[in-house]
Amino acid sequence: MAQGPLTLDELARRIGAEVRGDGSRRVRAVRPLEDAGAEDVAFYANPRYRKELQATRACAVILAEDAAGHAPAAASKLVASQPYVSFAKASAIFNPEDRPLAGIHPGASVGTGAEIDPTASIGPLCVVGRGARIGPRTILHPGARVLDEARVGSSCILHSGAVVRERCVLGDRVILQPNAVVGSDGFGFAFDIEGDDDGPMHRKVPQAGIARIEDDVELGACTCVDRATLGETVVGRGTKVDNLVQIAHNVRIGALSLVVAQVGISGSTEIGKGAILAGQAGIVGHLRIGDGARVGAQSGVAHDIPDGETYSGYPAMPHREWLRMSVSLPKVPELLRQVRKLEERVKELEEIARRK
Amino acid sequence: MAQGPLTLDELARRIGAEVRGDGSRRVRAVRPLEDAGAEDVAFYANPRYRKELQATRACAVILAEDAAGHAPAAASKLVASQPYVSFAKASAIFNPEDRPLAGIHPGASVGTGAEIDPTASIGPLCVVGRGARIGPRTILHPGARVLDEARVGSSCILHSGAVVRERCVLGDRVILQPNAVVGSDGFGFAFDIEGDDDGPMHRKVPQAGIARIEDDVELGACTCVDRATLGETVVGRGTKVDNLVQIAHNVRIGALSLVVAQVGISGSTEIGKGAILAGQAGIVGHLRIGDGARVGAQSGVAHDIPDGETYSGYPAMPHREWLRMSVSLPKVPELLRQVRKLEERVKELEEIARRK
Amino acid sequence: MAQGPLTLDELARRIGAEVRGDGSRRVRAVRPLEDAGAEDVAFYANPRYRKELQATRACAVILAEDAAGHAPAAASKLVASQPYVSFAKASAIFNPEDRPLAGIHPGASVGTGAEIDPTASIGPLCVVGRGARIGPRTILHPGARVLDEARVGSSCILHSGAVVRERCVLGDRVILQPNAVVGSDGFGFAFDIEGDDDGPMHRKVPQAGIARIEDDVELGACTCVDRATLGETVVGRGTKVDNLVQIAHNVRIGALSLVVAQVGISGSTEIGKGAILAGQAGIVGHLRIGDGARVGAQSGVAHDIPDGETYSGYPAMPHREWLRMSVSLPKVPELLRQVRKLEERVKELEEIARRK
Repeated sequence: MAQGPLTLDELARRIGAEVRGDGSRRVRAVRPLEDAGAEDVAFYANPRYRKELQATRACAVILAEDAAGHAPAAASKLVASQPYVSFAKASAIFNPEDRPLAGIHPGASVGTGAEIDPTASIGPLCVVGRGARIGPRTILHPGARVLDEARVGSSCILHSGAVVRERCVLGDRVILQPNAVVGSDGFGFAFDIEGDDDGPMHRKVPQAGIARIEDDVELGACTCVDRATLGETVVGRGTKVDNLVQIAHNVRIGALSLVVAQVGISGSTEIGKGAILAGQAGIVGHLRIGDGARVGAQSGVAHDIPDGETYSGYPAMPHREWLRMSVSLPKVPELLRQVRKLEERVKELEEIARRK
Repeated sequence: MAQGPLTLDELARRIGAEVRGDGSRRVRAVRPLEDAGAEDVAFYANPRYRKELQATRACAVILAEDAAGHAPAAASKLVASQPYVSFAKASAIFNPEDRPLAGIHPGASVGTGAEIDPTASIGPLCVVGRGARIGPRTILHPGARVLDEARVGSSCILHSGAVVRERCVLGDRVILQPNAVVGSDGFGFAFDIEGDDDGPMHRKVPQAGIARIEDDVELGACTCVDRATLGETVVGRGTKVDNLVQIAHNVRIGALSLVVAQVGISGSTEIGKGAILAGQAGIVGHLRIGDGARVGAQSGVAHDIPDGETYSGYPAMPHREWLRMSVSLPKVPELLRQVRKLEERVKELEEIARRK
Repeated sequence: MAQGPLTLDELARRIGAEVRGDGSRRVRAVRPLEDAGAEDVAFYANPRYRKELQATRACAVILAEDAAGHAPAAASKLVASQPYVSFAKASAIFNPEDRPLAGIHPGASVGTGAEIDPTASIGPLCVVGRGARIGPRTILHPGARVLDEARVGSSCILHSGAVVRERCVLGDRVILQPNAVVGSDGFGFAFDIEGDDDGPMHRKVPQAGIARIEDDVELGACTCVDRATLGETVVGRGTKVDNLVQIAHNVRIGALSLVVAQVGISGSTEIGKGAILAGQAGIVGHLRIGDGARVGAQSGVAHDIPDGETYSGYPAMPHREWLRMSVSLPKVPELLRQVRKLEERVKELEEIARRK
């Protein structure tokens, strides 16, 4: 499966870069700056790793124009306008996905009426439920499960233990990391003071809707997308979701957003296009987070955020305001002392004034 | 499986509502206000959706007495004292659970001595361990696993990938969402400065107890309930737990509590009856959270909370105190400037006083 | 499997304790102080449970020298220099792990070229991928999955639903709780403004590295360890990780650290040896958390932490500073009033001064 060696000229052409140095040299792999050798191409972007760049023994380094001067003279430069994109392309060339053979493993369980494209690959101990559909070239790794009437598009990859519950829909090129869950019941209960025979109860509200995961979405390991109470929970085209994220019922996330690990989004909240929610942030329900909005790590968002704005903190506020505040708060203990002293001084002045 | 059309009179009778308008009209489904049409019943409670109510084309709307005036004249009203409860009942009527056939799928693995009620349904690729017991009408969806000597009551639903580890106990009507875990080992290690051959180590404390999930509990997707070190971890009757929640060893949660997504409860903490822990809150170990207590989202609780109290913030404090504080903190940067200025003014006054 | 009764003398010898009282009495089990009876040994360390100690009817109690005086006269004392360690050993004696029989269950799926030691135990519905290796005495509980070319050492325990993805490596005596994930793809995307045919996109950066879990590590239920972009993500020897923890790509954790539930560690961050990260803490990427450093619960760490330091809060700061600050913040509402009043008083004084 592995790619043979490529000339730097050929590689540059395929990743959208320009060669500075000997374009006829050959590389076989991408490696980190510190490990790369005479047949490897490395990558530089974060100034934290300037020292590693200066010391690298890589054959070539993918980097931006303005960083080229920092690389060792011996290394060829692959200058790119989007170095990280060019690196992603180079890595994809040298690290092609392993594709299991097409077909249905005899140890898989396929329900009646399921339609599985002959180019799809269904691994051992997978489940394809009654009436479910699996599109062309889609891979179910061992133990992935697509339940009754669910639909999975083309060229999807469902890793081991991923679950797509009944009637949910995945577009094309969707990736589910291991043990991700699509279509779990939303957390919907009506407190019934009368209850049934045993007194008050939390009565389950049927979660009769579905979850729809659009094209090119990736969901991380153990990430949960609840099905809607009615209608659809939607994760929009090209949005990427990290591990252990909670996406509640009837949430709608726009296209090309990023949701980092352990974020929680409460029910019926809408996240716009191109938004970024940093790690462990929490968003309460029924809000609107704008297109291109950003939410800082661990922030707690209780109000709408306008398009393009960055919010941080708990409760979340405009990021600059939060920065100012969070720099000032550690000064409060000293401030308390200062004010106590000021009070004494003012009291003294007042006494002097009174005496006169 | 689907319910045929019902007259509003009949529906109202079954959901505990009163018809205002033509009770002979027929409905076939529950739908959101904005999607509902001439054969649908919709639901209104949150004033955020007043506009959707006013514009709805639903045949009928379930709502409270005081909201009835806001609905369009053309819509019949199903006035209920507990509208959300009535909606839950209506949705359950029109969206009955799909029940797989009773019996054990040949692709399931059943251990020796397991006792499975003949009315239970064990799906493909499920595991029922040695000596485990499965009660009447309980459903194990494909890939659910009940391990050795575990006991599952009647009318439970274990979704795909849910795991009940050895010897743990589920009551009746318990629901486990996909990939939920009952009975994982608690996080118990004794730091042993002497260790074995290789120097100091964290020595594992055997987690010899179990987890017990009482009747009518629901656990969300990827939620983890650890088994006790000794004795039992307990989730009490009718308590509902959302996705990705951590319930540590020897925690005891009372009846009818609500635990929202991504909450973490540390070891040996007791949560009372009817408590509500909002999303991403964290509770340290060995505490007592009172009956009916409420904990705000993302709060960090380091001390006991009395019955009926609401706490918020980090570290958590009475909610009102926290509200006052969190409104005042953004004023600290300005306060610092003010105090600096005050200091100068006082200094000046002091100089004037001295000169006199 | 259960251990027969042991004399206290024999037990003390095996757990490194000294008997005070009748060493010939026999015990059969470890039980909590409040449940223990005439044939049980109990354990005391946390002063919160002093009352339970005083009232216990246990045959014997494992405790520290200075606590011995608080136990009832009737109870023998097993005085230990490391009481919790001695308790762990006692519990391990009376609660030996159930070991399934060696061998491969016929309902497991084993890929071509997989090497499974004959003393290993592979349960029903387990997957051992193509070319994977399973060491001596290792147990795969039902539904555990070790994918292609992955390597698992000796005496490991993989609980139900645990996944070890392609090429990842587990050392010896590693424990994976249910539904833990090793080797999910890291969250790596390069925003490509040009994109393919459909405009801008987040282009997936292949996650071509692996995750390596060293000897004696335990990973909690639904905990996720991402594989590296290039190279390795490493969890070091003897480190223990609780449930629902996120360990991102290229993170390196040193030996003997503790990572409590729901912690998130972002990409390329290094955690030292013997560090402790308390529950729900979040660490941003590319940091260095020192050897023996401690991070408080729910803290948000955005900067390096030196060896041995304790940090808390959001943003995290030295723990003492944070304590001082968090005690002072609830006083801010009152401080605002005070300063307003001071201002008025100073104004008055200024007017007096002006008039003179």
